[in-house]
Amino acid sequence: MKELVIIKIGGNIIDDKKALSKFLKTYNSISSPKILVHGGGKVTTQLSEKLGIKTKIVEGRRITDADTLNVTIMVYAGLINKNITAKLNAKGTKAIGICGADAFFIPSVKRKKNNIDYGFVGDVLTDKINTKLLITLLKDNYAPIIAPITANAKGQLLNTNADTIASCLAKALSKKYKVKLVYCFEKEGVLNGDNVIQSITTKTYQALKKNKIVTDGMIPKLDNAFDAIKYGVKSVAIGHAEKLKQIIQSNAGTSITK
Amino acid sequence: MKELVIIKIGGNIIDDKKALSKFLKTYNSISSPKILVHGGGKVTTQLSEKLGIKTKIVEGRRITDADTLNVTIMVYAGLINKNITAKLNAKGTKAIGICGADAFFIPSVKRKKNNIDYGFVGDVLTDKINTKLLITLLKDNYAPIIAPITANAKGQLLNTNADTIASCLAKALSKKYKVKLVYCFEKEGVLNGDNVIQSITTKTYQALKKNKIVTDGMIPKLDNAFDAIKYGVKSVAIGHAEKLKQIIQSNAGTSITK
Repeated sequence: MKELVIIKIGGNIIDDKKALSKFLKTYNSISSPKILVHGGGKVTTQLSEKLGIKTKIVEGRRITDADTLNVTIMVYAGLINKNITAKLNAKGTKAIGICGADAFFIPSVKRKKNNIDYGFVGDVLTDKINTKLLITLLKDNYAPIIAPITANAKGQLLNTNADTIASCLAKALSKKYKVKLVYCFEKEGVLNGDNVIQSITTKTYQALKKNKIVTDGMIPKLDNAFDAIKYGVKSVAIGHAEKLKQIIQSNAGTSITK
Repeated sequence: MKELVIIKIGGNIIDDKKALSKFLKTYNSISSPKILVHGGGKVTTQLSEKLGIKTKIVEGRRITDADTLNVTIMVYAGLINKNITAKLNAKGTKAIGICGADAFFIPSVKRKKNNIDYGFVGDVLTDKINTKLLITLLKDNYAPIIAPITANAKGQLLNTNADTIASCLAKALSKKYKVKLVYCFEKEGVLNGDNVIQSITTKTYQALKKNKIVTDGMIPKLDNAFDAIKYGVKSVAIGHAEKLKQIIQSNAGTSITK
């Protein structure tokens, strides 16, 4: 099986022009087949504010009403996706910006209301992901750049968590490729105080959670990572966007293994 | 050679929910390989107004400053493109929403300042259009939905006329396909008073312009059409979006021939 690198880049890097530019330079230099999944960043909140739409966040997730949905579609699938794509093409990567709604390749459903109504938020139907489009593109040396927007079977667009998309794609593509999933953000990895935890296993993860070393936003990220490993992904790593190359070579960041 | 239908749909149809829905239903029923190029519509102007960006139009063309460019990227490549794409996928068409910046397949240059500085507006480098991506997608029965955003070699995104994109793509793809180019809008075709002109040739076009039957916005549309015919496109037709099927069968609209 061929190697495939799937990289998720977070909002904090996207918001920082210099950091993004550095990251894209490194990304461009990766020679193996590669997929980039990107998140949102502050632009969404800023644009919402300018338009008089109030941003509601509950348990770390944006509540997506109809107006907010339109903003996320415009910013994620439009502004961020096409700017990253154009910049990568200028560097030599044959980048193609798409989202989960294209060719309906990441089918999702609108999240059911329980205590909280998340609005137009998508839950990915992992088993129904259609990898044909991605495989065709990768075979022709295209590098898909994926915005975190999906759709349901009725054609309703849905705002979808980018970490989840990266992990679901990694799982689906692990039948065809040796997948290395990398979460890039503005920290050196999973931290214990000031120190990077070099490796986390299923066992040590439980202890890290229990001792509250791993908290908040890191938990869904790690849950996604362990879920990916469980379903065939070769390796998952988390680290600083600036050290992408070293992370891929397991010389930086936190490595997640069984 | 296989037949390929390239359809350009204008802003007035996109602004009208019912008309768009009808159009997409008909578009979905076209069984030959097909490409859809869409324009913008009022949403761009409305969003610009809400954001306090003044819309400047000179000689029928939007002046695209940096803020306006971002709005066009968000609306064209994001909101409109992904909504059309998701709706078509729900109907069965394997639609993929892209723009000219993806895989740098429609290279363009920033329009040179003469009397007017159009800002971030792209002029397509027709000879450099790379049809590989489209041919790959069409071969796998995907239907590309193309937003009128392109990029230059430096990765600068540029707002680009959708009529021109449709005509340039038609020309570039005519080496590989028997291309039928259709411009759909809210009128029955090129009109002489209340009557549709069924056919226009290079010769009759000159007379129509001279007698001011064809004026304003129709001139660049027809110039694009004749240019397409000149460079190998099999036929060009202009007509009402509601009559798409009849137009394709040459039973409605205005037909443009040598």
